[in-house]
Amino acid sequence: MSSAWKTYQQEHQERFLNEMMDLLRIPSISAKSEYKADMIRCAEAVQKSLRAAGCTRAEVMPTAGYPVVYGERIIDPTKPTVLVYGHYDVQPPEPLELWHSGPFEPVIKDGKVFARGSADDKGQFYMHVKALEVMDKTNSLCTNIKFLIEGEEEVGSPNLAAFVAANKSLLKADVILISDSAMLSLENPSLDTGVRGLSYIEVEVTGANRDLHSGTYGGAVANPITILAQMIASCHDENNHITIPGFYDDVVEASVDERALINRAPFDEKEYMRELGIQALWGEKGYSTYERTGIRPTIEVNGIWGGYTGEGAKTVLPSKAYAKISARLVPNQSSEKITEKLLQYFQSKAPAGVMVKASLHHGGEPYMTPIDSKGYKAAAKAIETTFGKTPIPVRGGGSIPICSILEKELGIKIVFMGFGLDNDNLHSPNEKYNLENYFKGIETIPYFHKYFAES
Amino acid sequence: MSSAWKTYQQEHQERFLNEMMDLLRIPSISAKSEYKADMIRCAEAVQKSLRAAGCTRAEVMPTAGYPVVYGERIIDPTKPTVLVYGHYDVQPPEPLELWHSGPFEPVIKDGKVFARGSADDKGQFYMHVKALEVMDKTNSLCTNIKFLIEGEEEVGSPNLAAFVAANKSLLKADVILISDSAMLSLENPSLDTGVRGLSYIEVEVTGANRDLHSGTYGGAVANPITILAQMIASCHDENNHITIPGFYDDVVEASVDERALINRAPFDEKEYMRELGIQALWGEKGYSTYERTGIRPTIEVNGIWGGYTGEGAKTVLPSKAYAKISARLVPNQSSEKITEKLLQYFQSKAPAGVMVKASLHHGGEPYMTPIDSKGYKAAAKAIETTFGKTPIPVRGGGSIPICSILEKELGIKIVFMGFGLDNDNLHSPNEKYNLENYFKGIETIPYFHKYFAES
Repeated sequence: MSSAWKTYQQEHQERFLNEMMDLLRIPSISAKSEYKADMIRCAEAVQKSLRAAGCTRAEVMPTAGYPVVYGERIIDPTKPTVLVYGHYDVQPPEPLELWHSGPFEPVIKDGKVFARGSADDKGQFYMHVKALEVMDKTNSLCTNIKFLIEGEEEVGSPNLAAFVAANKSLLKADVILISDSAMLSLENPSLDTGVRGLSYIEVEVTGANRDLHSGTYGGAVANPITILAQMIASCHDENNHITIPGFYDDVVEASVDERALINRAPFDEKEYMRELGIQALWGEKGYSTYERTGIRPTIEVNGIWGGYTGEGAKTVLPSKAYAKISARLVPNQSSEKITEKLLQYFQSKAPAGVMVKASLHHGGEPYMTPIDSKGYKAAAKAIETTFGKTPIPVRGGGSIPICSILEKELGIKIVFMGFGLDNDNLHSPNEKYNLENYFKGIETIPYFHKYFAES
Repeated sequence: MSSAWKTYQQEHQERFLNEMMDLLRIPSISAKSEYKADMIRCAEAVQKSLRAAGCTRAEVMPTAGYPVVYGERIIDPTKPTVLVYGHYDVQPPEPLELWHSGPFEPVIKDGKVFARGSADDKGQFYMHVKALEVMDKTNSLCTNIKFLIEGEEEVGSPNLAAFVAANKSLLKADVILISDSAMLSLENPSLDTGVRGLSYIEVEVTGANRDLHSGTYGGAVANPITILAQMIASCHDENNHITIPGFYDDVVEASVDERALINRAPFDEKEYMRELGIQALWGEKGYSTYERTGIRPTIEVNGIWGGYTGEGAKTVLPSKAYAKISARLVPNQSSEKITEKLLQYFQSKAPAGVMVKASLHHGGEPYMTPIDSKGYKAAAKAIETTFGKTPIPVRGGGSIPICSILEKELGIKIVFMGFGLDNDNLHSPNEKYNLENYFKGIETIPYFHKYFAES
């Protein structure tokens, strides 16, 4: 069977790539309302591709926001069903000036395809579409397959919970399979055992009711940038431990064994720094890099702005300053509780001379998956088959807010089988996806279905 | 003589206003290179207006940057000469969305003309042009008058020192008169006895060589926004005292008498706060508001930016963060020394995980003028004549970087006779100049010349 898969894939390799690139040409930016038409166009393209790949049902289904694309291929209701989750929306491409080629004009260079969404997540969910085609055309489908491809992951999946709750029987399955994360490397394949949760807020600090002359008023009226900087600075202590009251209350400390396992994953500190162009690492004292990005919660400022930011100099004491700030959460922190603490913190830290408005963008719960489940074992075996190595279980640093809701609503576990790499420039200029990873993913996925069906 | 002045002014009031508004229509923004043609057009308009008002010589004179407009009316070389300094360039108008009307489409509302440059400084230096016309047409000129109207005040007068040094005999005068500041109110006229100095720098903090995914790397790689916020926050202690080493070293502490004088100026704290829309004042502990803006040095962040600042949310750990930061200086701080300390501070505070580039935009020395000079006395007497009140001597919070150079090169004192108000929205949206102040200025200036000639 496996040789038939390989032969089919090799014969259609060029088309598999071109189809993925066509999808990358659609600027499906969910955060920006002016891309609405492109979002719909992208959903329709995904639907078409599902049908072409062998889905007997493929629909663009409405939500209160951007639609969900649903597809299914049921071969036998008594066989196990795999639900593939992915998302067709992408992050905004800014800052545009740092891209070496257009974010929505995919180019191939050095064996990588460069475009927004190439790794996150179009290139990755499309591996599953093509894996279906491979299995279908080689008459080797051994599970039922369902696809749930949403359009609002990058804005926190605000409408997916309601969609899932309303379509429980449609989405009924035995396991959820997600390729929206990374592995350590092709040489050291890994499987994520969880994702961090998220609380994403925006803070607006207002001083005077208008911009002021910094000479006339400077020193006598609170500067909202200074105040905001003070609030941000005080989020971490000198050990980069977060100081927000109660922030760590619900954190389940990783066990000695788990920390040892995490730190057994190969990590070349020099190469890590060289690749990022930094002279030193940074982070919470007492934890390694993988621990800092895996088992520890963090707070990052994602954006800040206020005052005069143009060419030259302007001596202004601004009226307003803003920041976008997000926390990554670990078990058993609750996104709702942490959001509350963050909002409370920023609102209460302000001196009387300014007003603070802090509001939630979106959030999501942390999620952990067991490594002794049928799904995880099938994924590990599939990786072993095509990579020749047992995958290392690692904690992913990113967030897929919908995970905990999917498990709760559908009552099944999630398996994270990501084929990206940490240096894919997710959410950054020059996002890329290695062609080798793309094709290796299409090669590996059918084995997951095979082993899951057999287990 | 005074009744002839008043009659002439009243007869030509409408034209005096229209001419000033024509000048306001030219977007002479020195900070932005795309306004170069408008800058030249503005210089030529000023030249034309000087000639029309009675200057026998009026020239647009080149510098290494934007030209200086020079004008003169010499009635008798043995009579005293007043050199009027002003500037035809204006601050950038951003943020545009906060303007109620176009920044370069002056409108009159509630007795005020709203436009960028109306008070700073086109409307104010133009009072001197019209005062010349009034005296000329009523045959009552009693001093020689020279005009030095530059085009780079808002970017720190980088080329004026060289111009003044090269044109000492052309600019030879007995006093320098500047209307580029404010008075307390028409009910409480005041004269500034000094301006603060300035050190304006820009700081660029770089972390990783590209924007990163805040989940994958968050917690393990220094966030330049967080680091910049920490550096800004640590500039002030809990008493809002500046912590930068050596910052206060050269400050001449104001005497008990001088502080008493400053605090005698009428100040309605409630009205001040109400007008600014704030609930509390802010500033260095142990000093009053007028002291904070007059005799104390300050540090303000004029702008900050980094990461994602668009609509919605983006979970990015940015590569870069920037701030524009300026200090206001008091006697005897040196702009050069303070700039050095600021640059050093920001460069040295950075942890090893980031790189900091800090550079100077521009600077200028603080300047004090004696209140027992002939010029100050003539100004005080002129104000007494038209306002019926002795002006209160106050320290101005703003900066006119060229003051110390003018005095040094020309060997004469400066008199600050500003007719603006603190709430003119200088450097802010909806800059305005009260028509009453404009006309009161034109009425008062001829008396200055009269009393200065008589002294």
